[in-house]
Amino acid sequence: MTPNLDRVHYPADLRGLSDATLAEVARELRAEVISAVSETGGHLGSSLGVVELAVALHTVFDTPRDKLIWDVGHQCYPHKVLTGRRDRIRTLRQEGGLSGFTKRAESAFDPFGAAHSSTSISAALGFTVGRDMGLPTGDAIAVIGDGAISAGMAYEALNNAGHEKRRMFVILNDNEMSIAPPTGAMSKYLSSLYDGPLGAAHRMAEGFEAALPGPIRDHARRARQLVTGLPGGQGTLFEELGLSYIGPIDGHDMGQLLPVLRAARARATGPVLIHVCTVKGKGYAPAELAADRGHGVSKFEVATGAQAKSRPNAPSYTKVFGQTLTKLAAEDPRIVAVSAAMPSGTGVDLMADRFPTRVFDVGIAEQHGVTFAAGMAASGLRPFCAIYSTFLQRGYDQIVHDVALQNLPVRFAIDRAGLVGADGPTHAGAFDIGFLAALPNMVVMAAGDEAELVHMTATAAAHDSGPIAFRYPRGEGEGAPLPERGEVLEIGKGRVLQDGSDVALLSFGAHLGECRRAAALLERQGLSVTLADARFAKPLDTALIRRLMRGHRALLTVEQGAQGGFGAMVLHHLANSGQLDGRCAVRTMTLPDRYIDQASPEAMYADAGLTATDIAATALEACGGTLVRAD
Amino acid sequence: MTPNLDRVHYPADLRGLSDATLAEVARELRAEVISAVSETGGHLGSSLGVVELAVALHTVFDTPRDKLIWDVGHQCYPHKVLTGRRDRIRTLRQEGGLSGFTKRAESAFDPFGAAHSSTSISAALGFTVGRDMGLPTGDAIAVIGDGAISAGMAYEALNNAGHEKRRMFVILNDNEMSIAPPTGAMSKYLSSLYDGPLGAAHRMAEGFEAALPGPIRDHARRARQLVTGLPGGQGTLFEELGLSYIGPIDGHDMGQLLPVLRAARARATGPVLIHVCTVKGKGYAPAELAADRGHGVSKFEVATGAQAKSRPNAPSYTKVFGQTLTKLAAEDPRIVAVSAAMPSGTGVDLMADRFPTRVFDVGIAEQHGVTFAAGMAASGLRPFCAIYSTFLQRGYDQIVHDVALQNLPVRFAIDRAGLVGADGPTHAGAFDIGFLAALPNMVVMAAGDEAELVHMTATAAAHDSGPIAFRYPRGEGEGAPLPERGEVLEIGKGRVLQDGSDVALLSFGAHLGECRRAAALLERQGLSVTLADARFAKPLDTALIRRLMRGHRALLTVEQGAQGGFGAMVLHHLANSGQLDGRCAVRTMTLPDRYIDQASPEAMYADAGLTATDIAATALEACGGTLVRAD
Repeated sequence: MTPNLDRVHYPADLRGLSDATLAEVARELRAEVISAVSETGGHLGSSLGVVELAVALHTVFDTPRDKLIWDVGHQCYPHKVLTGRRDRIRTLRQEGGLSGFTKRAESAFDPFGAAHSSTSISAALGFTVGRDMGLPTGDAIAVIGDGAISAGMAYEALNNAGHEKRRMFVILNDNEMSIAPPTGAMSKYLSSLYDGPLGAAHRMAEGFEAALPGPIRDHARRARQLVTGLPGGQGTLFEELGLSYIGPIDGHDMGQLLPVLRAARARATGPVLIHVCTVKGKGYAPAELAADRGHGVSKFEVATGAQAKSRPNAPSYTKVFGQTLTKLAAEDPRIVAVSAAMPSGTGVDLMADRFPTRVFDVGIAEQHGVTFAAGMAASGLRPFCAIYSTFLQRGYDQIVHDVALQNLPVRFAIDRAGLVGADGPTHAGAFDIGFLAALPNMVVMAAGDEAELVHMTATAAAHDSGPIAFRYPRGEGEGAPLPERGEVLEIGKGRVLQDGSDVALLSFGAHLGECRRAAALLERQGLSVTLADARFAKPLDTALIRRLMRGHRALLTVEQGAQGGFGAMVLHHLANSGQLDGRCAVRTMTLPDRYIDQASPEAMYADAGLTATDIAATALEACGGTLVRAD
Repeated sequence: MTPNLDRVHYPADLRGLSDATLAEVARELRAEVISAVSETGGHLGSSLGVVELAVALHTVFDTPRDKLIWDVGHQCYPHKVLTGRRDRIRTLRQEGGLSGFTKRAESAFDPFGAAHSSTSISAALGFTVGRDMGLPTGDAIAVIGDGAISAGMAYEALNNAGHEKRRMFVILNDNEMSIAPPTGAMSKYLSSLYDGPLGAAHRMAEGFEAALPGPIRDHARRARQLVTGLPGGQGTLFEELGLSYIGPIDGHDMGQLLPVLRAARARATGPVLIHVCTVKGKGYAPAELAADRGHGVSKFEVATGAQAKSRPNAPSYTKVFGQTLTKLAAEDPRIVAVSAAMPSGTGVDLMADRFPTRVFDVGIAEQHGVTFAAGMAASGLRPFCAIYSTFLQRGYDQIVHDVALQNLPVRFAIDRAGLVGADGPTHAGAFDIGFLAALPNMVVMAAGDEAELVHMTATAAAHDSGPIAFRYPRGEGEGAPLPERGEVLEIGKGRVLQDGSDVALLSFGAHLGECRRAAALLERQGLSVTLADARFAKPLDTALIRRLMRGHRALLTVEQGAQGGFGAMVLHHLANSGQLDGRCAVRTMTLPDRYIDQASPEAMYADAGLTATDIAATALEACGGTLVRAD
């Protein structure tokens, strides 16, 4: 029963309602979000934390003319329900359904899409300049979490916003949790803003105090009295950066949120930061009580919170990496690991359980994380830098300038390579092969299955002569038997899994299984197929490539990445060694030149034209034939 | 006459000297640096600013066991003189000579090389962990400027260092200047630390005060009394991040530097930030009086400071871009420009002269700069984001996630593409073609000469349907006549400059002139040469490529970039359209798979195997012949 919410189709419908009714809308909205996510799975905890905030912001601000920008965007489910998408909210993260993040293509109420963290303040400042230059856009409001605001990029944006002095709003959504509990001195500082002892009165940002109704004014003043922590009246860190600071206020109390936002909107002349304290998972006990506050959940039963557990057929690549790393670390005290706010997502939490002082969670700080690892490597340690492919883009210059150019032995463990499923195109690991293989000194590997990942982790640990990277996909392995110990692979050598004479499939990475299925399809058409696993995109196994070129009518490279990666390296080598003489046709199978919307990974690869059938059809076309489709 | 300096071959020679003699050493070292840079050119101002600091740090700390890390590294000339490299200091930035930055391969006293800013604190924390884990390394000391410390990466590192609480040292070298006067709220905040009114006494970092000798203690206390600016005793921003703060102290007064550093070294238990105020260009009037404080100088006359001006044969690409952008901005009020602390290096200062409110210098903050531009594009403005190729690596994820994926029309003006000369491999713009061309929605252009740059700037301005990038090299143009107005080029169409029938040279970018010379060499050997300018690496001109493949014995792609870029895109297309049938040989000429040390750009390209002779020889080899070398 959601009688009040039922009358809200768009934010304009909120604006005539009484504050009491708005609180009712929020109550019903929370139930709706719980119900929807119980069917779809998704980012429950963060969305429950901003139910009241979403209602209050859309009530007070004139969206979509005012630009409301949710940082990361994973907390956007209540926002989507309020902005014309309630009828599709149960398609969240499904193929053909709503994105799990904000997305410009989806709604005018999503002025700036997200999924990676800490971009919202920069974008909001951009809209603000547009408004000040006369474009038909209103105020910009960035809503950013305490984890995300501690990233360097957010700091750069605050620094610039404080300098520009333009009217804009930053809502600090402080729940003391990102995915893992946040780390770093900034996080501690934020806690001190409300955990500290009562200090002297704090000067309110000019004008705000007077604009607040009496009881709220007292509350806000009391809140501000908590701000400084230490005796004396110097401003918060945010005020030192040039923003007016209001807060902290209770982000679940519409009686605080609405008047404070109204006052801020009425009076702000420059940049304002409103510090709102929320509880991740708020209002749903199973989420509030979970260690991760219901950050990411599968489908669940609403009454109990019991999640539908899918029974895995094989251990995940992440777990295989974490376990292998932990074993290696037990044998080699020089092994250390770096994570950027993703200890469990990357599996380094397994190592941290046994060797807590040798695993460093640097927070959302990939730039620092990479160079910190480089410094450890320069000191003689053996650092593994475990960062998802898509987030490694955040540390690219550091990989180039601090690691590769100095030839320092940092080991990059690149999880979530290739297409990742429900998180969609923003989280696809599409570009790492190319952006790493272009770098002199870098060794680039990809694991054909989880047994290969064991070997590659061991190979990386042993590789002291320079940087080395290995990539592997999200999700469970192929069911390959796991070796007791990883073998140190010869650098730059691939392997041949089966020998044939018509078509050579040269796989780089976890599409090896799909290549195996393609080989079977081709054999059914009477072709003789060689299946090889390149293992290395750099250095290339040039002897293997020459052998494949000489003994086949067609050579196909197959990878879970964009153009400019493994296939490109093979082609460069073939061209410049004069092997493109027409005797063996060459095709490169990569991700296509477009972004692939969320679906299951299998469906995404089908969309990308990278199924076994696609591979077989391409091989046949290269041989001058066509595939007789059995399906 | 440098009698004291003459006795200092390595830092150990400093450690027995009296403080008075050390001050003499510093005086003589300054003269030596001025004399050396007058012969070589280079980063004079920043080096003069740290003469006393270099002497004091090497005296007090046990380098090279203690790891002294100069951020950016362009201020390292005094350090190089003190660390066994005085005999080569007059080879700075020359071919075969000393690097203009710190470099691990050059000396054990350079534990972590640099050139890009804001990496030093991360690296120092890495060494610190190595020490704490028992490796034979001492304290780590990062020396970082006020411009560099305001970058997000430095903030991430401070945040993590404050969290880790390990003993390490950050020297904030505050000269209120990076290359341009610094921008942003952080810069203003730093100024407030010593410009503010006298406030209440500030709590000294525990233990330091007592360790100082009497007169110095008074000075330091007085300095600390200036710290807070506002009444009250809350800590500085650095203390809020968990570092002990000492300062500010006068970085040219050995009587302050030595005891403060000694006390810090003796007493520190956690991370310490020492705020040192210096003057860029200190002690050399022509530098101190220059607008850029002698940041980067040519060879000069010591007595007058008069720099040897080379007379350019043609305007620089930078100037052509800046002038064209300004003209376009005059016609289109939606055009805005973003620079990351490089307004004059990128030429947007020319636009700022006429339209100051439409040019945004965001400071050393490429991550923010790119997304800020994306926000402006989303608001309806037409932003040009002018960032050097090498620094654009800092904003890569933002290009992927905020610009390309959302298909927002940000215009990337990429100066310093290709090899750059004296700044060496750290500043090479080697990777942008590949890391941009891999991105769906992105248009990637390169200018064949400065007239082409005019057209491409106009093309970018007019391109509203998505992101577009155009690259061009450092230095002066080819002398091409400049068009009065830029022409809007057809997206994805190249041009043919001369028609032939044996060899096709397909140039992408500023190696067009070299290709023209290669064509002349080939013609002298009796070959008929087609010369084409691709203009676009993405989308490719597939009709042009087909025509070249059909009508020639060999096709060469030529670019000023690494493998995985333009040539790779051409090869992918040829492979997957079945055109690699052996009738036309294909070669891709790119930068080689190694870093190229500093020299003149011409010498670097010769080292890279990309001269006209190299191109002609490769073409002949592809045709089955060999080049008869005239030279």
